[in-house]
Amino acid sequence: MMLFDTLTIVGVGLIGGSIGLAARERALCGKVIGVGRNVEALQRSKEAGILTEWRENWDEAFQASDLIVFCTPVDQIIPQAQRAIEVSKPNTIITDAGSTKAKIVQKLQGNNDHGIEFLGSHPLAGSEKKGADFARATLFEQRVTIITPTSSTTSFAKERVKKFWQGIGSQVVELSAEEHDTALAYTSHLPHLLASALAGMLPAEWQKFTASGFRDTTRIAAGDAALWTAIFQENREALLAATQRFQLQLQELCQAIQSEDSNKLLSMLHQAKQVRDALGN
Amino acid sequence: MMLFDTLTIVGVGLIGGSIGLAARERALCGKVIGVGRNVEALQRSKEAGILTEWRENWDEAFQASDLIVFCTPVDQIIPQAQRAIEVSKPNTIITDAGSTKAKIVQKLQGNNDHGIEFLGSHPLAGSEKKGADFARATLFEQRVTIITPTSSTTSFAKERVKKFWQGIGSQVVELSAEEHDTALAYTSHLPHLLASALAGMLPAEWQKFTASGFRDTTRIAAGDAALWTAIFQENREALLAATQRFQLQLQELCQAIQSEDSNKLLSMLHQAKQVRDALGN
Repeated sequence: MMLFDTLTIVGVGLIGGSIGLAARERALCGKVIGVGRNVEALQRSKEAGILTEWRENWDEAFQASDLIVFCTPVDQIIPQAQRAIEVSKPNTIITDAGSTKAKIVQKLQGNNDHGIEFLGSHPLAGSEKKGADFARATLFEQRVTIITPTSSTTSFAKERVKKFWQGIGSQVVELSAEEHDTALAYTSHLPHLLASALAGMLPAEWQKFTASGFRDTTRIAAGDAALWTAIFQENREALLAATQRFQLQLQELCQAIQSEDSNKLLSMLHQAKQVRDALGN
Repeated sequence: MMLFDTLTIVGVGLIGGSIGLAARERALCGKVIGVGRNVEALQRSKEAGILTEWRENWDEAFQASDLIVFCTPVDQIIPQAQRAIEVSKPNTIITDAGSTKAKIVQKLQGNNDHGIEFLGSHPLAGSEKKGADFARATLFEQRVTIITPTSSTTSFAKERVKKFWQGIGSQVVELSAEEHDTALAYTSHLPHLLASALAGMLPAEWQKFTASGFRDTTRIAAGDAALWTAIFQENREALLAATQRFQLQLQELCQAIQSEDSNKLLSMLHQAKQVRDALGN
């Protein structure tokens, strides 16, 4: 089911590369063009079957596209997409895969005179691994992609973007950009912050005393530091609010430990276990 | 290499069961006797090749043993091992697999008139899974087991216990019981507390917005609530001290986010990534 003649992926890393593989495998697009900073990596991605072609000149790729997906770090999406809106041909749809949405959507929402339209997206899939070498066509299967339409989003663009994410295997949920950022502060950004704090405080001489518990809990702290610095800054307020809520929860647990209130502690650990059990592996 | 004629495992769950499988596979003991609360589970463990036999009467098992390993929850080890010290035959060695050590060692250290001797152990292996059904002979391979000898520990007992853990595949490190508890508060108990706090505060309607980051970070919160209540209580002081240290680290990260100090944030996330990268997968 061909949805777009030409797809351009901006930033062909783990997410962008997986989008390319999935879109090609499922024949959702005729051409898949890649653009990015590193032309050697783009050439390798073409050889790996992620792209049908790549361009050094971004404007050229934008002008050839029916759908453009920005998979670059969240602090780069706004200026890059503004350029795409400027130079693209009429009716081009632009979306992204950024982990924060409110600032991006606020700057890019609406459509211009030529009907070029931006709609925010966030596929909830990823890994602490970085780069197209880890890309896989199945990355989005059984995962949720959040799209964040606004009052100015046309139903045309919304349906097309929705079908695209469904086409590569994910379930699509609509939220406002603000709801997205509040929820993701809890489900993604706070866990990352905690993992980084925990890994960062481990004395070197105790590394050998870590087992699977520590390793699981801190795994995402191996993620790219620059990428996550940008995410934390873009979602500052919601993340700090989630952290405050976390500190209260931690304090309640500590009080139960301090006061030897085993019943309270048991019941809090049991409630947490039920939540975790419900998520599956 | 036969080390002990008769090994008794008290509490044949994930850890106890894996000890039985590993000891039998490597022929470290002639007989492997299991005792526990659930005789049907013991019978199943015998059928699964974990045990050569089991006893309903614990004293009978204690009296037949050369090595007794307590794999019961940490708040049960002291009274159970005291009974074993009372009834065992001369020269029996007693150890455990408990996640906390100071209180246990303080109560049980030294040897009595018959040369029955307790030496604390903690194999750093495990899982959020529970029960002998998840036992495997390879659980201790390439893992560290900490032993916690005191000034009254004989070199005879220390060498024998050390050889036993090495015999089932692990690397043995000696620490004082207090050092153990301080280190494990950082590397195991605090991660568990954070995972439980994070899982416990997740609103039900946002469960569908969790991806691998949240799942990894909270995986251990699926551990047994009673077992961990006991561990947190037994290691109260070191755990609360580690939590305080964590709160300072988190606060430093939050201040960098709040003040938009991207360089500071980047450098803290980068340092955490280096620690995590050094641990491997």
